[in-house]
Amino acid sequence: MNTPFPQKPRIAVVGAGALGCYYGARLAKAGEDVHFLIRSGRAAIMARGIKVKTPTERIHIKKAQVYGTSEEIGPCDLVIVAVKATANDQLKKLLPPLIGEHTVVLTLQNGLGVEEPVADIVGAHRTAGAICYIGSYRTSPGVIECTFPGLMMVGEFGRPAADRTHAIAALFNRAGVKCEAHNNLEEQRWRKLVWNVPFNGVAIVAGGITTDVIMADEGLCTLARRLMEEIIDAAAKFGHNIPRSFLELQFERTVKIGKYRPSSLIDFEEGREVELEEIWGEPVRRAKSVGAAVPRLEMLYWLLRRMITARKGKFRRR
Amino acid sequence: MNTPFPQKPRIAVVGAGALGCYYGARLAKAGEDVHFLIRSGRAAIMARGIKVKTPTERIHIKKAQVYGTSEEIGPCDLVIVAVKATANDQLKKLLPPLIGEHTVVLTLQNGLGVEEPVADIVGAHRTAGAICYIGSYRTSPGVIECTFPGLMMVGEFGRPAADRTHAIAALFNRAGVKCEAHNNLEEQRWRKLVWNVPFNGVAIVAGGITTDVIMADEGLCTLARRLMEEIIDAAAKFGHNIPRSFLELQFERTVKIGKYRPSSLIDFEEGREVELEEIWGEPVRRAKSVGAAVPRLEMLYWLLRRMITARKGKFRRR
Repeated sequence: MNTPFPQKPRIAVVGAGALGCYYGARLAKAGEDVHFLIRSGRAAIMARGIKVKTPTERIHIKKAQVYGTSEEIGPCDLVIVAVKATANDQLKKLLPPLIGEHTVVLTLQNGLGVEEPVADIVGAHRTAGAICYIGSYRTSPGVIECTFPGLMMVGEFGRPAADRTHAIAALFNRAGVKCEAHNNLEEQRWRKLVWNVPFNGVAIVAGGITTDVIMADEGLCTLARRLMEEIIDAAAKFGHNIPRSFLELQFERTVKIGKYRPSSLIDFEEGREVELEEIWGEPVRRAKSVGAAVPRLEMLYWLLRRMITARKGKFRRR
Repeated sequence: MNTPFPQKPRIAVVGAGALGCYYGARLAKAGEDVHFLIRSGRAAIMARGIKVKTPTERIHIKKAQVYGTSEEIGPCDLVIVAVKATANDQLKKLLPPLIGEHTVVLTLQNGLGVEEPVADIVGAHRTAGAICYIGSYRTSPGVIECTFPGLMMVGEFGRPAADRTHAIAALFNRAGVKCEAHNNLEEQRWRKLVWNVPFNGVAIVAGGITTDVIMADEGLCTLARRLMEEIIDAAAKFGHNIPRSFLELQFERTVKIGKYRPSSLIDFEEGREVELEEIWGEPVRRAKSVGAAVPRLEMLYWLLRRMITARKGKFRRR
C-alpha cells in the first residue's frame, strides 16, 4: 500500500455499462492507458468506439482498447470494477488475471458490502471503493448520456485514505472527474444510503413513482424521513456520525431535482437487476446485528424482495 | 334499549351488495318482513329477485320488497347498514326516514370507527354493529355467491350486549345465519383487524398477491406477524386482551384456506372503493393517540393510501 502509485498507471475497466464507459472514456480522453473488459456489446464498441454526451461536452473515443477476456489484458495498476453487484459471481473469474503485486481494485458499486466480495478474491489490502454521485445511463452499447457529472468519493476498504488513494483521486481529477479521497469509505456509503434507501425503494413499492410524487405525498414524505432516521441511527451504532442537518439537506436537494426517476426504479421497470441486497438487505442485516431498530427499512426490504422476485418471471435476463 | 325487541320486527336493509343481499335474502326466506333500500341495480332485482348460492343451498327471493327511497319504507325496528363505509356520506340522507323511537341500526361495515358516523345521525343508543366473517361476492345485481357462510358477531356501540342484542342474534340464527351476541364489540373489531390489516394490506402493496404467496414468502410472513403484534399491542392499550395464541390461530387458518384473494385486493383490482380509513387509517390514529408504536402499520397505511389514490384515476367510480 505504500508503494508509490505509478504516474502513468495501466488501467482496466471491468464492465461497459454507463459508469464503466463514462469514467473509462474520461480517463482515455485524458491520455491514460485504459483497457476495457467488455463481455456484451463488444462488437458495437469495437466498431464505433465509446460516445459520451454530458451537459457541456461530447467525448468520442474512436479506438477504445477493448478485450473480451481478462487474460488478454493481463496485470494492471488500477482495476475499476464497473459491473453491477448482482453480477459479482463473475468476478472470481474476471479479476485474477488483472492482478499484480501492487494492483488496486476500485469498485464503483452501490450500497453496503460491495468491497467484501472483491477483497475475498484479490485481498483486502488491494481493495478500494468509490461512491459515484452521478446521473448517467446507457442508451445503446458504448453510448452514454450523462445528465449530471456530479462527484466521486474514493476510499480504502476498512482503513483511512493512503497515498495511492490520493493518487487515484488526482488521476480522476486530471481526467475531468471531480473526485475526493475520504478517510472513512464506509461512512460515505451509509451517507449515500440516507437518500437511496427511501427514494429508490419507495419509488418502486408505492407503484412506480417519481421523487416529486413522494415529496408531494404527506405520508410518503414522512416515511422517507423515518427511513432516513433509521439509517442515521444505525450508522451511529457503527460510529458514523451523520448529523440531522444532512437529512434536511437531502430533502432540499430532492425538491430541487423535481421530477426524478430513481435509478433502481428504472432498473426495476426495465427488467434489469436491482441492487436489492446492497442497498436494502445488507443495511438491514448490519443494523440488526448491532441492535439498531429498523422496522420500516426491513419492511421495505421484504416488499422489494417479493416484488423483484415476482418481476423476474416477466422479463428475460439481460 | 330496554324496550323489548319485537318478535316480528320490521327490517330495512340499506344497500344491495353481497352482504345486504345475502343476509336480507336469508331473513326474507325465514319469513321476516324485509324491505330493501336499493339505489343501483334496482330494476334488475325488481325483475328477477335476489338469488343466493351457498356451498349447500340455493335461495331465490322472487318478490323482494324493493324501494328506491327511505321515505317509501318508513320507520323500522331494525335497520341493517350494508353499504360500504366509503359511502357513509349518504347515510345522513338515507337513515332518518327509517328511524322510529326504538329502532336499532346495525352496521355491518368493516374496520374501526364505523359505528360513530351512524351514531352521529341516529344517536349512540340506537347504534349497534356486526362483524361478518363471511366469504361472499356479487356476480351481478341481486346475484350473490357465498363461498363461506361463516359467522356473524353482533354487539352494542360502546356498551355490553343488551336484551335487544340477543334478540337480533336469535333473529339471525332463526334465519340460518350463525350469529353470536358479544359484550365487547370494539374488542371484536380489533380481533378482526389482526387478520385484515396484514393480509388485505400486504396483498395489495406487494403487487397483487394471494394469501398463499404471502405465507410462502419468509419476509412477508414475518411482516404479517409483526403487523399482527402491533395490532395486538395497540388493542391492549385500550384494555382489549387478545392472546398471542389468537395470532397463531390466524396463521393456521390462513394456511388452511390456501390460495385466497383478500376482499380489499379484489376491491382494489376491480376499481372499487377500498376501506382504507376503516381498516388501516383509524387503527393507526387510535394506536398513536395512546402512544402505541405502529411503525409498520403506519407505513402500510401510507403506501396503500398512495396506491389507492393513484388507482382512482384509472377507473370510473361505480
